[in-house]
Amino acid sequence: MIAKHIQALHAYTPGEQPQIPGLIKLNTNENPYPPSPAVFEALRAFDATRLRLYPDPVCKALRGHIAEMHGCAIENVFAGNGSDEILALASRAFVEPHETIGFLDPSYSLYPVLAAIQNVRTRVVKLEDDFSWQVPATCHDAFFYLTNPNAPTSLRASREHVAAFCEKSTGIVLIDEAYADFADDHCMPLATAPENKNTIVMRTLSKSFSLAGLRFGYCVGPEPLIHALYKIKDSYNVDMLTATLALAALQDLPHMRANVAKIKATRGRLAATLRGRGFTLPDSQTNFLFARPPGGDAKKLLQHLRDKKILVRHFDLPATREHIRITIGTDAEADALLAALD
Amino acid sequence: MIAKHIQALHAYTPGEQPQIPGLIKLNTNENPYPPSPAVFEALRAFDATRLRLYPDPVCKALRGHIAEMHGCAIENVFAGNGSDEILALASRAFVEPHETIGFLDPSYSLYPVLAAIQNVRTRVVKLEDDFSWQVPATCHDAFFYLTNPNAPTSLRASREHVAAFCEKSTGIVLIDEAYADFADDHCMPLATAPENKNTIVMRTLSKSFSLAGLRFGYCVGPEPLIHALYKIKDSYNVDMLTATLALAALQDLPHMRANVAKIKATRGRLAATLRGRGFTLPDSQTNFLFARPPGGDAKKLLQHLRDKKILVRHFDLPATREHIRITIGTDAEADALLAALD
Repeated sequence: MIAKHIQALHAYTPGEQPQIPGLIKLNTNENPYPPSPAVFEALRAFDATRLRLYPDPVCKALRGHIAEMHGCAIENVFAGNGSDEILALASRAFVEPHETIGFLDPSYSLYPVLAAIQNVRTRVVKLEDDFSWQVPATCHDAFFYLTNPNAPTSLRASREHVAAFCEKSTGIVLIDEAYADFADDHCMPLATAPENKNTIVMRTLSKSFSLAGLRFGYCVGPEPLIHALYKIKDSYNVDMLTATLALAALQDLPHMRANVAKIKATRGRLAATLRGRGFTLPDSQTNFLFARPPGGDAKKLLQHLRDKKILVRHFDLPATREHIRITIGTDAEADALLAALD
Repeated sequence: MIAKHIQALHAYTPGEQPQIPGLIKLNTNENPYPPSPAVFEALRAFDATRLRLYPDPVCKALRGHIAEMHGCAIENVFAGNGSDEILALASRAFVEPHETIGFLDPSYSLYPVLAAIQNVRTRVVKLEDDFSWQVPATCHDAFFYLTNPNAPTSLRASREHVAAFCEKSTGIVLIDEAYADFADDHCMPLATAPENKNTIVMRTLSKSFSLAGLRFGYCVGPEPLIHALYKIKDSYNVDMLTATLALAALQDLPHMRANVAKIKATRGRLAATLRGRGFTLPDSQTNFLFARPPGGDAKKLLQHLRDKKILVRHFDLPATREHIRITIGTDAEADALLAALD
């Protein structure tokens, strides 16, 4: 009685969330620092009596603030139950059964799962050996997930490079900028440009804003595309507490930027030390490192760290199996990691 | 660039959430009483630092509690971002493109929208003139949304009647029990019966638990069907605060039951008074009345009440256009409604 393509589906596996005391958790790109004091205050001030009412189905206050941040209209902003919801909605709004969904390979391993749920074919743009990617001569995918900076490689393509890709694309390109706040540049201007017809830029509060548990993501793009997402979303996709706390967090950008600065400092120190110990790794534009240990036996290293109660992530695929992905935690966590590597 | 069936789609319209001071809001079946004190306490005790981490993707603690409540295994329980998410997931997991989705007519007006998003055909079981429905000789829909008690009619089919329908169905039946706590009986035993292969029962915290703003719904059914929903849901569909507060609410059933008792008392009094004034209405098994004013000009009544700052709901379709749907509020709100009708 279950649809055949769902029966055949291999579900996405999120990174582990084990409850082990003393564990150092560097496996899911969470932020080691607390969210803004404004979030604590908004939570404290929230009157639970309000929860008896439905939330605003279209998140006007929150979207208005985001529109102001990025210099666009509220009609250009979609508010989602985490950016995961936006990724899934886009695969349903923008792709017909006979069309294809494209993405970089390797990239976020959820994308092929979303295509399989829609029962549509996929097409990949393969990364080079140095994890960069070339703009193809043509791109005819109905829809393309472009993670930039990319995961798990930690590398960013330049804004000009991404713009060239979007121009060559006959379909819609969604630029997943989950890690943009940790990078030197971003592509939001491609989404807000008046001439833009096919480009959406997506952000999340899960990483730089320390709010993975809250589930809030948003995207910015041409009004007809945003409207299509609104037509098919669940009626009240963002709950009242999430909308309230997300707004509080977005109103305190200095706190987010200070946390990001700390993480970038730790990232620089950890990367330099690992290189000094024979690891090879690209210059990260994210809150994680994609590091190849000397000899390339990443699986063995993963197990060794696990034995020392340090969790990192490993993707056992040809292009990634010699690397581990290490989330940047606090300085103390970086020191513990280095000690465990000794 | 937008998929054709999405372009053609008429989106679902949620009931209005206007911010007018002094408005009496009887249009979206919200509960007039606050949620349990345990919800206030859980909110107060919640440490926002935890939000930096991802939530449990499969809501183990919450589902464990729900499984215990209903005497089933955790594998029989799905936790959703409101029951809306479950309705949408089911339309994707259980229906192939050439199959049909069935529902009662009239019923919840979201169902045909969900079928249109999936681009599959629909088939309806028409209600009789008294808003009851007959079990068809056969039911070959791949999937059927069975709202019981039904909305907007407020009537409940007996457990035996529903069981007969599920037995005749070759596909999966999802019994949407959003209003079950206001009714004299429910169908959960059909979902938890060991021999059950095709029946899912769904509940929400939006109505009886006074938590529409929180977004939490769940369903109970055979493990293979629940597993299929888990395969296609967003990775972290229920946020950390929602999971925490939902658990607190479900641990205080006496508070919910006391609120429901007050609402049922108001319902009885309001129904009797309206009947005394020439309205016709079925015996409600929900937290709303489906009332036909003398003469049947419901549209005029809707406008009259709106002018008096009282919002009720009207569905302008042949079977429902002579009725208004009135949410049961407090006794004071019922008195204000009666005064406005004078």
